[in-house]
Amino acid sequence: MIPRYARPEMTEIWSPETKFRIWYEIEAHACDAQAELGVIPKENAAAVWRAKDVEFDVARIDEIEAVTKHDVIAFLTHLAEHIGSDDARFVHQGMTSSDVLDTTLNVQLVRAADILLADMDKLLAALKKRAYEHKDTLRIGRSHGIHAEPTTMGLTFARFHAEMARGKARLERAREEIATGAISGAVGTFANIDPFVEEHVCRKLGLHPEPISTQVIPRDRHAMFFATLGVIASSMENIAIEIRHMQRTEVLEAEEFFSPGQKGSSAMPHKRNPVLTENLTGLARLVRMTVVPAMENVALWHERDISHSSVERGIAPDATITLDFALNRLAGVIDKLVVYPQNMLDNMNKFKGLVMSQRVLLALTQAGVSREDAYRLVQRNAMKVWEQGKDFKEELLADSEVTAALSRDEIEEKFDLGYHTKHVDTIFARVFGENPA
Amino acid sequence: MIPRYARPEMTEIWSPETKFRIWYEIEAHACDAQAELGVIPKENAAAVWRAKDVEFDVARIDEIEAVTKHDVIAFLTHLAEHIGSDDARFVHQGMTSSDVLDTTLNVQLVRAADILLADMDKLLAALKKRAYEHKDTLRIGRSHGIHAEPTTMGLTFARFHAEMARGKARLERAREEIATGAISGAVGTFANIDPFVEEHVCRKLGLHPEPISTQVIPRDRHAMFFATLGVIASSMENIAIEIRHMQRTEVLEAEEFFSPGQKGSSAMPHKRNPVLTENLTGLARLVRMTVVPAMENVALWHERDISHSSVERGIAPDATITLDFALNRLAGVIDKLVVYPQNMLDNMNKFKGLVMSQRVLLALTQAGVSREDAYRLVQRNAMKVWEQGKDFKEELLADSEVTAALSRDEIEEKFDLGYHTKHVDTIFARVFGENPA
Amino acid sequence: MIPRYARPEMTEIWSPETKFRIWYEIEAHACDAQAELGVIPKENAAAVWRAKDVEFDVARIDEIEAVTKHDVIAFLTHLAEHIGSDDARFVHQGMTSSDVLDTTLNVQLVRAADILLADMDKLLAALKKRAYEHKDTLRIGRSHGIHAEPTTMGLTFARFHAEMARGKARLERAREEIATGAISGAVGTFANIDPFVEEHVCRKLGLHPEPISTQVIPRDRHAMFFATLGVIASSMENIAIEIRHMQRTEVLEAEEFFSPGQKGSSAMPHKRNPVLTENLTGLARLVRMTVVPAMENVALWHERDISHSSVERGIAPDATITLDFALNRLAGVIDKLVVYPQNMLDNMNKFKGLVMSQRVLLALTQAGVSREDAYRLVQRNAMKVWEQGKDFKEELLADSEVTAALSRDEIEEKFDLGYHTKHVDTIFARVFGENPA
Amino acid sequence: MIPRYARPEMTEIWSPETKFRIWYEIEAHACDAQAELGVIPKENAAAVWRAKDVEFDVARIDEIEAVTKHDVIAFLTHLAEHIGSDDARFVHQGMTSSDVLDTTLNVQLVRAADILLADMDKLLAALKKRAYEHKDTLRIGRSHGIHAEPTTMGLTFARFHAEMARGKARLERAREEIATGAISGAVGTFANIDPFVEEHVCRKLGLHPEPISTQVIPRDRHAMFFATLGVIASSMENIAIEIRHMQRTEVLEAEEFFSPGQKGSSAMPHKRNPVLTENLTGLARLVRMTVVPAMENVALWHERDISHSSVERGIAPDATITLDFALNRLAGVIDKLVVYPQNMLDNMNKFKGLVMSQRVLLALTQAGVSREDAYRLVQRNAMKVWEQGKDFKEELLADSEVTAALSRDEIEEKFDLGYHTKHVDTIFARVFGENPA
Repeated sequence: MIPRYARPEMTEIWSPETKFRIWYEIEAHACDAQAELGVIPKENAAAVWRAKDVEFDVARIDEIEAVTKHDVIAFLTHLAEHIGSDDARFVHQGMTSSDVLDTTLNVQLVRAADILLADMDKLLAALKKRAYEHKDTLRIGRSHGIHAEPTTMGLTFARFHAEMARGKARLERAREEIATGAISGAVGTFANIDPFVEEHVCRKLGLHPEPISTQVIPRDRHAMFFATLGVIASSMENIAIEIRHMQRTEVLEAEEFFSPGQKGSSAMPHKRNPVLTENLTGLARLVRMTVVPAMENVALWHERDISHSSVERGIAPDATITLDFALNRLAGVIDKLVVYPQNMLDNMNKFKGLVMSQRVLLALTQAGVSREDAYRLVQRNAMKVWEQGKDFKEELLADSEVTAALSRDEIEEKFDLGYHTKHVDTIFARVFGENPA
Repeated sequence: MIPRYARPEMTEIWSPETKFRIWYEIEAHACDAQAELGVIPKENAAAVWRAKDVEFDVARIDEIEAVTKHDVIAFLTHLAEHIGSDDARFVHQGMTSSDVLDTTLNVQLVRAADILLADMDKLLAALKKRAYEHKDTLRIGRSHGIHAEPTTMGLTFARFHAEMARGKARLERAREEIATGAISGAVGTFANIDPFVEEHVCRKLGLHPEPISTQVIPRDRHAMFFATLGVIASSMENIAIEIRHMQRTEVLEAEEFFSPGQKGSSAMPHKRNPVLTENLTGLARLVRMTVVPAMENVALWHERDISHSSVERGIAPDATITLDFALNRLAGVIDKLVVYPQNMLDNMNKFKGLVMSQRVLLALTQAGVSREDAYRLVQRNAMKVWEQGKDFKEELLADSEVTAALSRDEIEEKFDLGYHTKHVDTIFARVFGENPA
Repeated sequence: MIPRYARPEMTEIWSPETKFRIWYEIEAHACDAQAELGVIPKENAAAVWRAKDVEFDVARIDEIEAVTKHDVIAFLTHLAEHIGSDDARFVHQGMTSSDVLDTTLNVQLVRAADILLADMDKLLAALKKRAYEHKDTLRIGRSHGIHAEPTTMGLTFARFHAEMARGKARLERAREEIATGAISGAVGTFANIDPFVEEHVCRKLGLHPEPISTQVIPRDRHAMFFATLGVIASSMENIAIEIRHMQRTEVLEAEEFFSPGQKGSSAMPHKRNPVLTENLTGLARLVRMTVVPAMENVALWHERDISHSSVERGIAPDATITLDFALNRLAGVIDKLVVYPQNMLDNMNKFKGLVMSQRVLLALTQAGVSREDAYRLVQRNAMKVWEQGKDFKEELLADSEVTAALSRDEIEEKFDLGYHTKHVDTIFARVFGENPA
Repeated sequence: MIPRYARPEMTEIWSPETKFRIWYEIEAHACDAQAELGVIPKENAAAVWRAKDVEFDVARIDEIEAVTKHDVIAFLTHLAEHIGSDDARFVHQGMTSSDVLDTTLNVQLVRAADILLADMDKLLAALKKRAYEHKDTLRIGRSHGIHAEPTTMGLTFARFHAEMARGKARLERAREEIATGAISGAVGTFANIDPFVEEHVCRKLGLHPEPISTQVIPRDRHAMFFATLGVIASSMENIAIEIRHMQRTEVLEAEEFFSPGQKGSSAMPHKRNPVLTENLTGLARLVRMTVVPAMENVALWHERDISHSSVERGIAPDATITLDFALNRLAGVIDKLVVYPQNMLDNMNKFKGLVMSQRVLLALTQAGVSREDAYRLVQRNAMKVWEQGKDFKEELLADSEVTAALSRDEIEEKFDLGYHTKHVDTIFARVFGENPA
């Protein structure tokens, strides 16, 4: 976790305080279930809830752990300091440390997913707003970084919206997949504890019981979770790179928001750097790097080895905190992105009308000109644009061989930008699921 | 693609013949749609279907491509050789090469997914069969490679079944996600072609129209597909490693099937190597390595750059062919795995009864013995087992301090293996969704 | 291996023919050593060399392997068909299959490294040539994609040269590291064969004996090899991305070579796509993806498990063939890159003189103007350039507050591009280790 | 950085205090050089050293940065608070932030490398000690987890020594590669600063001047550094997995050190988990995951984009701190590993004498028995060992067909373990470069 790329809301999920709070809830709910089964006295189970509003003292627990060398025992000892050791002795009965630890991890991942889903909603809202705002803002579409045919800025925002909406749907599934808990004992057989306890605790925590666990919850669930974050991070990078391109000096179709008074901005107006989206590009790499270790974690030895644990101590906070920060940053970038429609038009016309050359070529052949001749006609006029800066349409209109095949109106029509935007509404309807009229 | 790790069924999907066949179908269906729209004459569209049963000549197409330097044009030229250039000139009208290429890739990935899903069904069937067969076959559960508590071999198979069933559900979703097609033109605006063509072609090919594309179908879909294969490969590795452990000389709880006459097997009966599951461990790495490049492919420049293409030429066949081979191999390994129940019992009793020490410890404290005393009692008897090879239960029964707290029956009961298997049916019901009685 | 991204020279290294040839040489040299030790008769050793000029029949060996189920035995059987089974029976004596297989792999990797080193020489030569050619070709340096200060195109080529020269030095070390052979038996103890055989065979093959092996050569060597290829591929991507940026329509400072007659180039002169460097960007991903599995291969079980084998069957040919192809392609791209010096100047002057604003700011403060005032002065003139397209120098010269602090000559001097290029020779001398005068 | 997997010595390198200290030294040395060049007054340069013993106040710098939004400016402002703004105004003259930041990162990486090299020395010492201690401790060598031929525990330690020594040599090279600094200005042209400053500062900091930089030091150096850490981590995993295997209940040839009084150890003597080496297995994944992003960082846009920065903020501390912790942990594990020679012998004899079956087979054929007969003879005796637990040698000696071919002494000789260890000294001499007698 890199402090400058972290928001408190997400960081808190991974704090020791939160962890102990979840441990407590698992233990308390488990006591309720054990009491209902008659395994422990109801009054002892009830007593555990006396610590309900306690803020557990992390330093104190660490102190105890330094002696016991066992984190869960340290916590239980500390809990006993609050509710009295008489009542405390029924806590954790029949349970294994992993029951608590693994279920807690999944609670944390579910909560992290919920924050990330909210982040994505914010980002989606910004993308949608900007998409409608620039639905008809013309810009040149580019393949290979080279001008191809006109499109609109709104379509760019809309496709990022569609991509992030897919990301959100994937995260919802990954959240669902990770929302399991296990209280099944040392090797998952429920030898020392009734499955009812697992069911009860899971219900209370908003989880499903893991249908079959060993000492641990199977790690393919976690692998899928991190893989999903990796895909979302990659989509984020996709958006970031678009903006970085738009902001480069020669393109300048958009800029990350720069507050008017921001130092340096006006003395060097050309030097406004897309540092936020560059940063997001790097953060995407940080999220993505957690995917392979999460997959390497799946193949544990027999009923568990603990190799996955150190990995998860790193990647679980790191990936969720980084992605949360990044999605928020991106939502802000999109929301406040400064868009320059005039520059978009200027760029499109860098080689005046030349992006229409293919349409003209097609029109000539459709008008009965042989493919070879059509090619020659387009070529000789195109080269004047490319080499001498002439206007393609003017040249065509002045070329008698061309006008013999195509009327002035037909030529003019080929340069009508409406030709390229006629299906924008259709596409918006597909993306936003509504009538965009 | 490594020939020895490839099955023809999957390899064929990635052959040039299959690719051209799909190209043809896309073009022919597109002509139908164009004819329905009145863009091209109906008879020309109909004429295209005359090539329906043609096996396209890959060598000939390559020959043409050597001249035209363009694969789609080469194909269209070859198609004209079959249906005549008069009819052929309406083919591909308004379309962009990427419309054909990208839609084809997704058709191939969908077909690959269908084969993989069938593979998984085979594997699931084998796992289920073996799970029921060994539902009550006792073996020791291990954490950290160290004996923990008893479990059954059936539970091991059952948890692999549950894991692979999750994998299958994920693949079904990934298949759904990749099942889109796009015929939307150079930058995705449908400037030169009506969206109806895209809809018609997709319907015919079993795809959904990509709601918003650029020149290409967005690569987050592909990233998700490969990430899903990576998770499944990791689950496969999980099973493979279990078997490799079971077969090691000191454990010998199972062996990969070895045909009785296989050379070397009987002159060196101890030297039957789990080479298939070792191989699967390696193949898992090969599948997993495709995940990161697939994610790096997501961030393309503007409406497309072609950096993804070379990556996909590698990873699309490689990942699907390798995983198909591997899943089939694994299904066979599971189906024919030689299981040694007696060795499982012998291993469990390597330190006679010692795996019950924790249960005895608990029983003593529950019987009112102080934690310290209970610990001391267990310890002194455990050490005799550990150091002198004594039988734990016998020692306990002979220890008057122990028998003062626990009756002979109570002690005996602690060594009852049924204690550990009493919930196996419950777990099976969870996994297999049926009454296992 | 993707055929279209493969060159025969490298592909051949990974052919069965080459493999069997190396097997043969290892066996023949081993016989010599065994004869010298008196383990086998000298005449039998000599007889093995009778097959020296034989081209082994791969199909026949495959046929035998289908029966023996063992590749090395199949080869030996085939060898016997050539030299007679009487002489052949001494071949391979005391050896283990892995002795042959692992040593062969390293011979192949060494040969692959030699080709790659030659590729890098070609690339270095092209970079050096272009560096000197454009040593003084001015262009704007960019940070964050935004104009910063002037530099020269020669410096760009020179830094790529320096980076690739580092890559070459790394590959030389990786080659050295992988140049080991092992003929040490089933677990590396030389129980059945004298270390002299290993020494002799390695000497003949240009390898060092692996100081301590198990059944296999340790895989950290291979991991280092693939990691090195991954770094080189990343440097290649670095160059590729620079060119892709230079070719984008709005920048157009360079283009990949486009033969004058190439179809489409002149009818759509704006549409020359940097497809080669985009392709190289993808190929870099393919090479890089082999690094992690190569690292995962290091941790083998005890004296060996065979999980690494399938991985290497994939990544060894794939990474070397792909990188070889890519380096060659890149060398060609650099050699023939079309550079547009005038466009470089035009780009630098997009906002006339504005890139000098920082130098002017500094000059004003050094001339005694307060930082606040200097800032204000630069700002008000800069904004005229930015917003109204004025010329920065002209504005400064017309601003009496500025001219009160700086003389006309001083102002002019700030726009002297020589200021930025004065150390180019120094840097060239550092990079090319020679007096660039 | 995960606190529990971090040692203060390494963590300190990445503290803000250390960072500011290095910044200070760079700035102060640069002032010296600038004074020597006559660019700034000597007394001002001297004055900067007045802060030599200052502990910079991180909180105060953060406070200033909150206003200036620029870390280097904040530091310089704070420095002025110590040395007076009159003297401070010459600090940083002609320099770019990146000059300071990038050179600092490399100083940190060099220091980190030095600690890691010391860690490796510790590990190498432990491995060497244990190698000599167990040079002749017999154990079974295993391929595929299956008994193969005898070897010694010393050879195992020796090969890990050889592997780690290679790792150390690699790290020395990576350290050398990363030991560069750059003070070359906004785009690397030295426009505003003389190369002499770079040379002076680098000399003082123990770095080489980067021959050619842009705004930043080229990232292939960093990629190589992290790749090297990844290979070392993989070698560490290789050792860890060996120990985990040795400790598993059925093998029990070694155990991680367990203090006699450690809770749980004696009441459950069978339940000593190899948690340290499992942990190391996970930590290896964490180090390895930094390799790919470090490679993705290489391809920056033009003279720099800042995407690498966030990545390095994560991976530079994470990879070095984790590997430092892990190497130390591993050195301790090796140093104190509890080895069980008797169990090694017992394991080797699990199937009494059967591991010699191949040697016997060979001896029979060499004695003139046909291959088919030899096979049959070995087989019928081997199966008695395998199925009925007989002793292989006894069976052979009792088999008249065998004794017809081989004398009792010859048979006995085949079971002589010295046959397998006769070259141990030779191998030790290769590894430890000394006469092991």
